[in-house]
Parts: sequence; C-alpha cells; structure tokens
Amino acid sequence: MPILLMRDIASESDRQMTPARHFDESNGRRSGISASHAPKIRYDRLPAITTTGISQFMTKFDVLTVGNAIVDIIARCDEQFLIDHKITKAAMNLIDAERAELLYAHMGPALEASGGSAGNTAAGIASFGGKAAYFGKVAEDQLGEIFAHDIRAQGVHYQTQPKGKFPPTARSMIFVTEDGERSMNTYLGACVELGPEDVEPEVVAQSKVTYFEGYLWDPPRAKEAIRDCARIAHENGREVSMTLSDSFCVGRYRDEFLDLMRSGTVDIVFANKQEALALYETDDFEVALTKIAQDCKIAAVTMSEDGAVILKSSERYQVDAIAIKELVDTTGAGDLFAAGFLYGYTQGRTLEDCGKLGCLAAGIVIQQIGPRPMKSLAEAGKQASLV
Amino acid sequence: MPILLMRDIASESDRQMTPARHFDESNGRRSGISASHAPKIRYDRLPAITTTGISQFMTKFDVLTVGNAIVDIIARCDEQFLIDHKITKAAMNLIDAERAELLYAHMGPALEASGGSAGNTAAGIASFGGKAAYFGKVAEDQLGEIFAHDIRAQGVHYQTQPKGKFPPTARSMIFVTEDGERSMNTYLGACVELGPEDVEPEVVAQSKVTYFEGYLWDPPRAKEAIRDCARIAHENGREVSMTLSDSFCVGRYRDEFLDLMRSGTVDIVFANKQEALALYETDDFEVALTKIAQDCKIAAVTMSEDGAVILKSSERYQVDAIAIKELVDTTGAGDLFAAGFLYGYTQGRTLEDCGKLGCLAAGIVIQQIGPRPMKSLAEAGKQASLV
Repeated sequence: MPILLMRDIASESDRQMTPARHFDESNGRRSGISASHAPKIRYDRLPAITTTGISQFMTKFDVLTVGNAIVDIIARCDEQFLIDHKITKAAMNLIDAERAELLYAHMGPALEASGGSAGNTAAGIASFGGKAAYFGKVAEDQLGEIFAHDIRAQGVHYQTQPKGKFPPTARSMIFVTEDGERSMNTYLGACVELGPEDVEPEVVAQSKVTYFEGYLWDPPRAKEAIRDCARIAHENGREVSMTLSDSFCVGRYRDEFLDLMRSGTVDIVFANKQEALALYETDDFEVALTKIAQDCKIAAVTMSEDGAVILKSSERYQVDAIAIKELVDTTGAGDLFAAGFLYGYTQGRTLEDCGKLGCLAAGIVIQQIGPRPMKSLAEAGKQASLV
Repeated sequence: MPILLMRDIASESDRQMTPARHFDESNGRRSGISASHAPKIRYDRLPAITTTGISQFMTKFDVLTVGNAIVDIIARCDEQFLIDHKITKAAMNLIDAERAELLYAHMGPALEASGGSAGNTAAGIASFGGKAAYFGKVAEDQLGEIFAHDIRAQGVHYQTQPKGKFPPTARSMIFVTEDGERSMNTYLGACVELGPEDVEPEVVAQSKVTYFEGYLWDPPRAKEAIRDCARIAHENGREVSMTLSDSFCVGRYRDEFLDLMRSGTVDIVFANKQEALALYETDDFEVALTKIAQDCKIAAVTMSEDGAVILKSSERYQVDAIAIKELVDTTGAGDLFAAGFLYGYTQGRTLEDCGKLGCLAAGIVIQQIGPRPMKSLAEAGKQASLV
C-alpha cells in the first residue's frame, strides 16, 4: 500500500524536454517507476563532462534551480496573531520542530501547496515553457510525495533521492494578513540532508543557468553542494545565479554572500530592496544599487509595486510592476520574478524584457493563494505580448 | 519527531462550545495533548443517557455530522482529460489504490485541502458560529493530521481515533474543468474502518441534529455506526438528517435510502435535483418532489443556479441562488448548502430562511478553490442580513 498514491510516479528521462502545458493530459504521462526507485540519469548516454565545457548544443535545461524543498501550509490571520506569536512580519522565520507544533496548533484551517523558493522558480520557468530542473531534499513521507508530484507534474526534472522518513519533509507555515503580506515560519526537516551527493553533475553541466537560494546557507551542507554546482557550471561555460532570499538571511550570511558575488562564483544576483539594503548595511538604496552592480555581472532588484531595476555594469533598466486587480497573497512573488527573468534570459531576451517577464510572473502569483501560478505563464506572456 | 507537526494538537473539552472565529488567535488555543492521545470525553461529567432522552438544556452541539474523512487533492483539467481517463463528470467516482496511483501520476500540479462531504458541512456550520461535531476516520499519517488539524481549527469537536497507518487517510482527486464543475475520484483508505465503536454516544445525545452522508454506505461498517447514531438521537428526542450525496450513490443504495426515510430513521433529507430524480427513477422532477415530501419530514432539494426548494408535507418554499461574480469550483456546494440550512434550522429559523442560508453558503464556496469557505460565513450572513 503506497503512503500516498504515487508508487508509480517518476519522470521519463526525456519528458523534461517537453515544455510544460498546464493541466494538459499529455503533460502528465509518466512511466511506472517509483520516486524512491527513480532511475539515475544514464551517464553512459551523456557526453563526458570536461573542464573545457560542453558546447551549447548539448544544453538540456534552461535553468537548474537548487533550494529547500518545502510544502507550504497557508492560512490567513490578523495582525495581532503575528504580534502574539512573535512572528516577524514579511520575513522567513526559521523554526524548530517544537515551535512548528505550537504554531500549527494555533493556526486556523489551512491549505497545502508545494513551495520552496527555488522550487517555485523552477515551476514558473516550466510554466513559461522553459526547460527546468530542480535539486532539493524531501523525506519519504506524504508531504514529500506531494512535493515531488507537483514539481514533476509541472514538467520539471526532479530526481533528488528522498532520504528516509525522518526528519520529515520541510514545511513552512505561511500566515497571510489582510494586506496580502506573507509571514513564513519554516521547519527545515529533511532539507538539512541536502549535500554534495545530491548534485547531478550532468544536469548542472547541461543547464544554461544554475540558480540557488541564499536560504541554502541555513542547512549545514547545502552550501557544499552549491560550490560544487558553481564549479561544474563554470567549467562548462554556464552561468550561476542566486537570490539573496530574505533580509534576515542576508544578515546571517552577508560576508559569505558578498564573497560569492565578488569571487565570481555567482554571476547573476536577485534581491529585493530590503535585501539589497541589508547586504550593504545601508539605508540609501542608490548606494546599494551602485555597489551591487559592481559586485556581480548582473543584478535584478525588485521593489514591490515599484517594479524592478536591472543592473549590468553601468547599464540600468527600470521596469514597471504590472497592474493587478487584487493583492491576495505575496507568497512566491520574488521566486516568480526570478522565473520570468531567467526564462527570458535563457531565451536570449534583452535585460529589459527579462525584467518585464519577471514582473508579469510576480504580478500573476500575488493575485492568487499559493506560491506557484495556477494559470499558464506561457499563455499570460502571450496575452501581454511578451513571448 | 512528529510526522507532521501536531503531537500537541487536540481540543480542549470545552473549546468546542465557543463559536468559531476565522483565523482569530483565540480560536486556535489548544491544550498540549496529541491527536492520537486525545482524551476521551469525560463520561463522568456528563448526564446519563437514557432511553427517555435528555432535555434541551443539555444540548451541547447544534449538529453532529458523520462522513468519510477525506483530504482533497485539487487540480484543473480540460474536458478531454475526463474522457481519456474515463472519469464520470460531476460525479463521485470510487477508485482503488491502483487507479489512485495512475490518476495521480497523470494529474497536474495540485493543491491539498481538507474535505469530505460531512466534514465540509461541519466546518460550514462552525463558520456560521454554530456548534458542530464530527465523526470520521483517518489514518495516523500526515494527511490524517492535516484533516484533524483543519476541522479542529475551525472549532469542530473531532475526537474519532485514527486507526494505524494503513490503509492511509482517504483522498479524493478532484479535477475541476473550465466550467467550474468538479469530478471526484475517491480512494476511501482509512474510511473503511469507521464502525460502531467510533460512535461517541454522548455527542449524539447532545446534538440537536445528527447528519450523515449517503456516501457512508460505501465503506463496509459505517452504516452500522449510523444506525446506532440514529437510535441514540431519537431516544434522546433529537433529529436525524442525511444527504443522498450523489446520483450514482443513490443508484447503488436506492432501496436502503428509501427505507431509511420511510422507516423514520431519517427525518430531514438533502438532495440535489439529479439525486432526487435518481431516487425515484424518474425524469419528472415534480414527481420526485412530491414523492420525497411524502417519504420524509423535511426535504431540501437543491437545483444549482435555480436555487433550492424546501418541502415539508404540503408546504413548499422556493429559494433563489445568490448572485455570484465567478464560478470557480463547485466542490462543496451541496455540503455548504446543508451547513447553512442546518445552522438556520438548529437556530429555530423558518424553513425559507434555512434555505436562504444554505444558498448563501453554497454560493460563497463555489467562488473559491476548495470545499470549505475561506471567509467567515457568520460575517457573510450578517452582510446578507440573514443572521
């Protein structure tokens, strides 16, 4: 008897090449192989990975994303709830198992949806029709199976082996206030197990961009995996990108993040305004923008309703946010901005267009509950004459 | 390490008396007792249950509902998907574990939400501010813990003991087509374990109305529990209600359902038009209405966008559906109609007002994804000048 439903769920090795179509039956066909028994990619079918790089025609994925694999548990609450429970508003609050139990006991009726910052980005890229892959660790439990199902059903390559039943799959209790702002409370669970052994080198080598979350500096060994990914990517002539994730996360790992940028380990950096300010410990946004442009090849800095600014050396492009009908839930906004940007970037679009695609995807996801868009971003892009 | 989060989640014995408030922190306080170690109700604190009934002032609950405890897994699909997968549209399709795996493998990215017809009704009653209780069986797994959390967090008394890890908690894969219609595919899992041993007699005795799903005739022993509930309820001067659930369910158990009504085991019957027609094997709706009015004390028959008709002997009340902005997902419409009706009924409202409250709740739930209203029905009732 399966724990959930999906003894038979895995991806065909080549299905990942097909642009995802939303809720289209043809998007759902799977071979009869279990997640826990999913075949490793057939190395013997792949070209050797050399330090001189493999050529562009071997590109299999537009973007590989790496992050904490998390199922979101989402409920509305009032402002007082955040105060009473000492939850830092609009932030990602890291919690342990004990606090997770306490908060869940006080949480109202909730919805569950697969999340995780980089997972959301991969799903967004696939929704645009891009070829995406993902590394992230779940446990062999029902939430882990839900996570694996959802990301694969979106058309994302996902083969990271789950590691036992304990610690359980990560979950983030997300409290959404009346203003649509989300305050996250994340129990990392199985994410702490992600390490260099989870890197699929041929996937890194065959991805135009490898993107990771700053959040990965929280679990103990994920940064080792990221350093390996960055090395393989660069050896193969690829680019590396990261998001600063959260201003408190920046506070925890400022020096390491700056070193990643200044050493050239990371080429493209995503940040929101607060994170950029936190990175340089300034309250002068112009100072932060100037410095971030110096510290990496490309920086994309989001500013909520004020859109985004894209910086590349002395070039600067300002992009407006899209008009929205109703702000429902900001969960996933930054993740989807990165999805739109990187989809455009790996399709060879101008930086300005990349920013517009980012703002489109972010604008769509904040008008729904949950962190992954329920409508096709490819369709939305067409309607907006952006793709 | 807890499987999900909620080693410490249980309800205080008296909290159930407090009308539920949505996402209000005061609604969330729990004592530190695990679901699997939740205290049995203290029989010594309760009056003896006698065959002569207990008086009205001992009423603790407005409505007890009994049903299959299910977590919904919800995704959109196109019409062709239903055809290709031989899913009967708008119906509840019973599936086994093997088919559940197959369908999930073909399902797009999904959301999870606690469901189960009678569970949704209990949640709706609590959302109106009514006092609700629920019997239904989950397994000791993450989906079971999600189900238990959500119904308790809504303020519903729920103490049914989970029964081991296998079979796992029931789930229904719900495919929502462009027209908002839902087609359900239910794997009963742990629901098959519900039996007379799960009846909490003092809860039945202290509930004004005990309501159950026709769906309970699918698992093997639930009907025994229902017969016990009906006996205890009537011995205590209470009323018994049921929903016919689904026209195919009516087809499976027509004679037994009619016997429940004609024998007086059931006082109040809920049906939609298709179920009423199926019950009497007629295509003449007037014939079905006339017959159902003869076969039970009160019948409430819903007609989708045409509202509902309430029948009591020769009395008949027609109630309009509420105007809606957008039909998103019909999941839970019938369940929430019953919630509104029974909330009104147990507050002593007229049958016409009960029907209006039912239409209000149904109209709200079909404008969102998922089967339980995310906004306060008490608030909605106030805005509509119905409560």
